[in-house]
Amino acid sequence: MRTEIMEQPGVLRATIDALLPQAAQVEAVARQTRQVLFFARGTSDNAAVYGSYLIQTAGGRLATLGSPSVATTYHARIDLSGVLVVGLSQSGRTQEIAETLSWARECGASVIAITNGVGSPIAELADVALVTRAGAERAVPATKTFTCQLAALAVLAIGLGADLDIGQLRRLPDVIAAWLDEPGHTSALDAIVSELVEVKGLVVSARGLAYSAALEVALKIKEACYLNAMGISYADLQHGPIAVVDAGTPAIIMAPDAGPTRDAAIGLARRVSGAGARAYGIGGGADLAAACDLAVPDPALPEWLAPIGLVVPGQLLTEALSRRLGIDPDNPRGLSKVTQTT
Amino acid sequence: MRTEIMEQPGVLRATIDALLPQAAQVEAVARQTRQVLFFARGTSDNAAVYGSYLIQTAGGRLATLGSPSVATTYHARIDLSGVLVVGLSQSGRTQEIAETLSWARECGASVIAITNGVGSPIAELADVALVTRAGAERAVPATKTFTCQLAALAVLAIGLGADLDIGQLRRLPDVIAAWLDEPGHTSALDAIVSELVEVKGLVVSARGLAYSAALEVALKIKEACYLNAMGISYADLQHGPIAVVDAGTPAIIMAPDAGPTRDAAIGLARRVSGAGARAYGIGGGADLAAACDLAVPDPALPEWLAPIGLVVPGQLLTEALSRRLGIDPDNPRGLSKVTQTT
Repeated sequence: MRTEIMEQPGVLRATIDALLPQAAQVEAVARQTRQVLFFARGTSDNAAVYGSYLIQTAGGRLATLGSPSVATTYHARIDLSGVLVVGLSQSGRTQEIAETLSWARECGASVIAITNGVGSPIAELADVALVTRAGAERAVPATKTFTCQLAALAVLAIGLGADLDIGQLRRLPDVIAAWLDEPGHTSALDAIVSELVEVKGLVVSARGLAYSAALEVALKIKEACYLNAMGISYADLQHGPIAVVDAGTPAIIMAPDAGPTRDAAIGLARRVSGAGARAYGIGGGADLAAACDLAVPDPALPEWLAPIGLVVPGQLLTEALSRRLGIDPDNPRGLSKVTQTT
Repeated sequence: MRTEIMEQPGVLRATIDALLPQAAQVEAVARQTRQVLFFARGTSDNAAVYGSYLIQTAGGRLATLGSPSVATTYHARIDLSGVLVVGLSQSGRTQEIAETLSWARECGASVIAITNGVGSPIAELADVALVTRAGAERAVPATKTFTCQLAALAVLAIGLGADLDIGQLRRLPDVIAAWLDEPGHTSALDAIVSELVEVKGLVVSARGLAYSAALEVALKIKEACYLNAMGISYADLQHGPIAVVDAGTPAIIMAPDAGPTRDAAIGLARRVSGAGARAYGIGGGADLAAACDLAVPDPALPEWLAPIGLVVPGQLLTEALSRRLGIDPDNPRGLSKVTQTT
């Protein structure tokens, strides 16, 4: 898992270079559609959350997540003409997603696949396949395939006409590489890991574009640390679940260095501390760090790319915590690399 | 909280009687729309999940959940012509939802509100307001307002032309009343509660239409028992989070007595037991009960209404567990009745 985390700058560069030229194909397929509907599971579903926020906030199109069981369990017939369905699967071989994409086509949708599986079923059946260049991923918890999915979603948004700076996307791998090269980040993460060894569960919270990164870090901690980590938006957290936060259940709060969600992150850190819980910050600049008990900076990226950077400290934290808990993060109990659900 | 749980047959009857005549208004507003987009938070968001499955599986229309922050944090401009936006808020006074509905109208959507707040901001600004008749709810964890929201969503689906039996909806309050009158159910729940007193966290899982009930029971347990309860679909659970299930983290598995998700519930119960964890069943008939360590039947309802019944044992379980843990379920720490997020 650690090796694959460290490979991310290289595979992100390869993915961005390979996929940017496909933006025109996306544009052509999207021309007869008005909105986007994502289908995915697990890590890929967390990536889809990023896609939905990015396309809505920067691309001005409705973009929401669909429920695969509507297709595979209920065999509903829904008019999807004018809908661009985007299916995500790391392997491209999750039967449930392949079936859902076939169903979507029968319902009149155009179909794009985002997968790391060259020649996989979902790549073959799509109108356009955005095949990430993450290379073989051997650790069960997905890391590099997730960040490459986010990069593919950035290309998707660009193909859909979103007003985004391609130069910033091209510089992303270097920014993450520079962050990984900074030894101070490892010691900042270790300080947080030492405290998390004792907890019974935790909350991982973010909002807006960064919400996807919080969901993904929570999933990694569940998979590789067997801890019940609740990935939740700042807003939903305050509609009830904040009650679980206490001395035994701290919160990791994630935010980009700038943007409209940063102040809410700082407010949440204060509320968590007020409830007697420890607050750990990832990103959010100096002000979030000051409001938290411990914090680590994130790679310095514009808000629309920040989730790709924010997840990296979370991946490293998970890997280190897993080992501290005596678990093999590469092979957690009960899981296999390709998950088959129907 | 317990008083309000027991009031549900009566307030459901009042809500159904009051709202069924409004189905024609829904039909009129929906005529120029092709799909539904829900906006809500917390308990109301769990209700929206039921609405999205019901409208897609029985009504043949796309129905998904939107993200309020796209409107309130990012102020995105999205073409929502042809979209029927449905906002849910118990009080009708959550500023974030009111703002989002105003934004949706500016973006071209038609707007329906589902709320227990007569004359509340979201009722006033909607084209049609489906006002539930739950009466004043004093306990902080919502119970009767949630089931009344589900009944309102059933009326919404009927107004949208879904092929559903109105007679079954009219009989629903009596079926729940009969279930509440059966003393054996209390002792079956007590046996589960006695075991849950010791756990560090738990999973609450269902799929399809019943997924909404699992999300809601998990939220109640978080609010009133301060336990990190993960509400998750069977399919998503198997894409990673199943790793957290062990002797200290059991699973509550919910399913209707019949329908296409029941076999998967039984399979999940066996997988949970195989991981060394306790499995508790709610509903799912004799076969799910046999696959679980302990189980309680649910009110005998057809699958499309089963979520309204399935949540009731979960509410009672939460209330009893909260008291056993020394908490006042009516007034959990850190929460107030109307949550304001922006």
